[in-house]
Amino acid sequence: MSELIIVPISGLVSIFVSLYLFFYLSKQEKGSQKMIDIAKAIKTGANTYLKRQNTTLAIFALVLSVIIGFFLDWQVAVAYIFGTICTTIASFFGMAAALRANLITANSAQKNLGSAFKTAFYGGAVMGLSIVGMALLGISVLYYIFGPQKLDIILGFSFGASALALFAKAGGGIYTKTADIAADLVGKVELEIPEDDPRNPAVIADNVGDNVGDVAGMGADLIDSYIACIIAAMILGAAINIHFLLLPLLIGAIGLIASLVGIFFIKSKGQNPGAALNKGTFLTCFFFAILMFLLIYYLKLGGAGWKVFYAALAGLAAGVTIGITTDYFTSIDKNPVLRIAESSKTGEATNILSGFSYGLVSILPPVIGICAAILVSYYFAGVYGVAIAAVGMLSIVGMIISSDAYGPIVDNAKGIAEQSGLGEKVIKITDRLDAAGNTAKAITKGFAIGAAALTVLSLFAAYAKLTGIKTLNLMEPNVIVGVFLGSIAPPFLSALLILGVQRNAGRMIEEVRRQFKEIPGLLERKEKPDYARCVDIATKGALSELVLPSVLAIIFPLTTGFLLGNHALAGFLGGSIFSGIIFALLMANSGGAWDNAKKYIEEGKLGGKGSAAHKAAIIGDTVGDPFKDTAGPTINTLITVMSLAATIFAPLILKWTLFK
Amino acid sequence: MSELIIVPISGLVSIFVSLYLFFYLSKQEKGSQKMIDIAKAIKTGANTYLKRQNTTLAIFALVLSVIIGFFLDWQVAVAYIFGTICTTIASFFGMAAALRANLITANSAQKNLGSAFKTAFYGGAVMGLSIVGMALLGISVLYYIFGPQKLDIILGFSFGASALALFAKAGGGIYTKTADIAADLVGKVELEIPEDDPRNPAVIADNVGDNVGDVAGMGADLIDSYIACIIAAMILGAAINIHFLLLPLLIGAIGLIASLVGIFFIKSKGQNPGAALNKGTFLTCFFFAILMFLLIYYLKLGGAGWKVFYAALAGLAAGVTIGITTDYFTSIDKNPVLRIAESSKTGEATNILSGFSYGLVSILPPVIGICAAILVSYYFAGVYGVAIAAVGMLSIVGMIISSDAYGPIVDNAKGIAEQSGLGEKVIKITDRLDAAGNTAKAITKGFAIGAAALTVLSLFAAYAKLTGIKTLNLMEPNVIVGVFLGSIAPPFLSALLILGVQRNAGRMIEEVRRQFKEIPGLLERKEKPDYARCVDIATKGALSELVLPSVLAIIFPLTTGFLLGNHALAGFLGGSIFSGIIFALLMANSGGAWDNAKKYIEEGKLGGKGSAAHKAAIIGDTVGDPFKDTAGPTINTLITVMSLAATIFAPLILKWTLFK
Repeated sequence: MSELIIVPISGLVSIFVSLYLFFYLSKQEKGSQKMIDIAKAIKTGANTYLKRQNTTLAIFALVLSVIIGFFLDWQVAVAYIFGTICTTIASFFGMAAALRANLITANSAQKNLGSAFKTAFYGGAVMGLSIVGMALLGISVLYYIFGPQKLDIILGFSFGASALALFAKAGGGIYTKTADIAADLVGKVELEIPEDDPRNPAVIADNVGDNVGDVAGMGADLIDSYIACIIAAMILGAAINIHFLLLPLLIGAIGLIASLVGIFFIKSKGQNPGAALNKGTFLTCFFFAILMFLLIYYLKLGGAGWKVFYAALAGLAAGVTIGITTDYFTSIDKNPVLRIAESSKTGEATNILSGFSYGLVSILPPVIGICAAILVSYYFAGVYGVAIAAVGMLSIVGMIISSDAYGPIVDNAKGIAEQSGLGEKVIKITDRLDAAGNTAKAITKGFAIGAAALTVLSLFAAYAKLTGIKTLNLMEPNVIVGVFLGSIAPPFLSALLILGVQRNAGRMIEEVRRQFKEIPGLLERKEKPDYARCVDIATKGALSELVLPSVLAIIFPLTTGFLLGNHALAGFLGGSIFSGIIFALLMANSGGAWDNAKKYIEEGKLGGKGSAAHKAAIIGDTVGDPFKDTAGPTINTLITVMSLAATIFAPLILKWTLFK
Repeated sequence: MSELIIVPISGLVSIFVSLYLFFYLSKQEKGSQKMIDIAKAIKTGANTYLKRQNTTLAIFALVLSVIIGFFLDWQVAVAYIFGTICTTIASFFGMAAALRANLITANSAQKNLGSAFKTAFYGGAVMGLSIVGMALLGISVLYYIFGPQKLDIILGFSFGASALALFAKAGGGIYTKTADIAADLVGKVELEIPEDDPRNPAVIADNVGDNVGDVAGMGADLIDSYIACIIAAMILGAAINIHFLLLPLLIGAIGLIASLVGIFFIKSKGQNPGAALNKGTFLTCFFFAILMFLLIYYLKLGGAGWKVFYAALAGLAAGVTIGITTDYFTSIDKNPVLRIAESSKTGEATNILSGFSYGLVSILPPVIGICAAILVSYYFAGVYGVAIAAVGMLSIVGMIISSDAYGPIVDNAKGIAEQSGLGEKVIKITDRLDAAGNTAKAITKGFAIGAAALTVLSLFAAYAKLTGIKTLNLMEPNVIVGVFLGSIAPPFLSALLILGVQRNAGRMIEEVRRQFKEIPGLLERKEKPDYARCVDIATKGALSELVLPSVLAIIFPLTTGFLLGNHALAGFLGGSIFSGIIFALLMANSGGAWDNAKKYIEEGKLGGKGSAAHKAAIIGDTVGDPFKDTAGPTINTLITVMSLAATIFAPLILKWTLFK
């Protein structure tokens, strides 16, 4: 199919655009020396962390690739390493752009809102465009080399990308929340100094965390689902014919083109950056629908083609709907957040209980949305339709990652503005930019979970296809046991991550308290704190805490498979999806709601800052921190990694099962 | 089978023994007038609540029975009402005994530990023996009347019993935690007066709550699983032959006999009531094994009989193992509780995070235990074996409920002793009795969840048998959607219960604060508080908050069935089991661990009472209250009710499905 050439071309164009934006940012004004110094400290911290993370990742990936090569196929092993490298380079490049954009955005905010918005958004777009471009380029290169008979090689690429995603999200998530909790607990709660105060020894670590956790984490958040759903759809399409095998790649390409167009339509000359971001997303969806229509028309696939078209649109529509309904549960002006804020009046316990309860309630609408997407897309095009719905939902991922990465950039810009004393007016502008980022973030979070659900379901179907499972009978004991075991994996691994954050935060809290005690004149601004020590604690801790959950995410499913066979393993994957979605939504939404309940009170409601209700709300927010920024987002990746591990090692499991 | 006569006989004997114990308790000394007055206030409050609860239950049951009669079968409708009435009478009688035992135990504690232990345990045994006796008697009467062809009538009886269970657990759970949270938050936290202080207007409501929530709730906790697993095993056994149909009833009978023997072996002349309770449980298990061996030997069922024997023992062994491992996560001297207590030093947020995380980790061992029980019992006797494992696990339920109900009785005795000022020595004795109750409670909680899991799996198999489902293919979209919907039901309904507790506690907090403000001299003990107002708030609130979750527990599965068909409904039941077990364990164990972390600090560790760590631990304990005493235990019943509703209405669902 000669049309396939648009896939590597769109990937290359996307990479070139991201390079262009990077150099555009590099040429902008950087502001005062003080600002540059702060930005430099953040940059150094972030680079130190990323280098160490990537070293650990390299060891992890090398060990795993040797295992894959030795037991399975050396070509798959190479593809695995290739996947890790492609995404790591793109992610590193995106980070570099974000670190530059932080500073420039803070500087532009001194001029006006419009230009600050532009630099922040372009900074995020570098991440979005480079990583999606690299993904499409990598997959299409492998496909050109190995052809349609060796799809397991692309599967290896996907597994490699998910290794980076897991490290970026788990490690970055632990890093950022370690610093955030420590900075808040000692700074805001114990000493009552403001957020981002330069006297706080954890403040630079906190800023570094926003970058390595949010920017790098966000980039990784969707890219592993994106690659995995494309390859899952290719495997399922292969059972129909070559056109349906390649369609997912083409849909990815036109989605990227739609995102490129959407990104350049985003402007905020007016005063509403939130509306600008949403308009960009909706425009991208609209362009995608038109391009998809033209593609199907051009390919002349007949009725089957149009059914795929409907399935893709159903996926995209479900994604947007899930995003919007999820937004309801975390919005500062909607009922759930208001009730949680209200419950803070009776203390910490009632704040926690209501946040947790609304988190549980918030699971309902998106799961119904996911179910509707499954039923509709299956109705049109069977299991392949479900995979295409996932591809459709994720097609606009370039746009989504771009507006996602915008959030932490403006957050950092605000931090730089505060630490270098740029004054009230500038802070206000960065606040407005920040609020827009939060809305965009809430929508894309729901989107990410919905997409992960459909992606992993597609992988589950692809796994069944590859292992020859036609019926997975939930009346059989080994399947039931598999589902039971799979369903406890996400909560168990989440617990490890949260305990990791807590252990690490404990260490940093001790260090921050020590500095305030032992450095005379620190509180009176006569002495500077030792930022580097905190950065070091966060770095070491994050890396040592991420290894166990990452390894277990591979060991759990494989152990189930080797012990109880491939039906039990399929059950395991099913169970991990069901409970994974529940815990991902619970954690993301309760965390977001607690955060906004606190912000609502800080706006002066219910007694405002310093009131008892505010203190209770801060506790809720702190509990929510590792929920929404460490464990919650990592669950998506964990279930993807488990499914990919099962699919890659399927041939071995078919050979070696202890109890058949 | 003439041996069947031992079933009603053992039921009758058990009821007679419980009557004997009741009159034995009635003849004991009651103590001073002050003690009698306090006990009377508790009794009045409890009876008021129970009468209103039973009125609401009667309306609920009547409406449902008319629906069952009109759409299905009037005989089933009558059996449904009969099931509700039998269990309600037994539960009411057990409560009456417990209310007497509270007072007598407080009085006996003035003599010595041994006699106080005896009265408390006998008080609990009335509940255990009367409710299990009634259950076996009711089932066997229905079987004698309708014979083996109309097992759906016994199913109706089971559904009726589960209606009481749901009301007792949800309503009692909301009641007790409403009062507990309000009494603690205003009394202990705001005014810093001790627990059970007579100046606190919520104190009587709190004591009433211990009775209606814990005693009545505990009785209901296991009885619905017990009846349901017997009928599920009968339905599955019917497919083999009449002997296997009746075996579950006979196992129930010998389990009850073993419990009777175990109960009369329990003595605590020495100083260790905890060891006495555990010894009673192990002795009961031992007697059960011997009697079961003799039964199988006598029935001459051949190899198949012995396989059933192994399955039953596997269930019992799994139950005990699950109980013991669960105990690890909530014991005051084990690692998880110590870590949670330690984390209280860095504040409320870290206390909450670590309690929640260890709660998640605690899911692992019991689920592995459940999986092992499934695999082993299935290996011996197929699906029937799994049901028999549940029957085996629950066979000793008479003993389990007795030691469960012992806990709240000594808790109340302690309350009476404190309020009537019986002095340090007596309080110490009640403290020792109380600690033993907590250990027994922890073990039986794990037991209850394990038993519920196997029971609901058996009901799931019985549902499949009745609706003719041989394969439930997890690759089909309607099954996947069913599992998704089923898996969100338990968290959603839990959220409603927790929010109910919170709303209700909010009302009572306002009332308690109002009384302290408006009644002059209350804090100086010159005036008495208005206890009745708080009792009234708890009563009304509990009843109004329990209706929605109870109704939804029936509507959710039926809607899924009528919309998407019986395969989707089977998937729904599966999903509700998987996530139900996860949330039940999470809530029970994190709640128990928070409670003991607080107690550990109150023992003088980590700064002791009044320290910052203690304050943080109190918040954790309060968050854990509705987890472990409202939502957690109700989940077991919710999933049983959902499965029974599906099985009862299966004939209608087979007829009317919107999208096939």
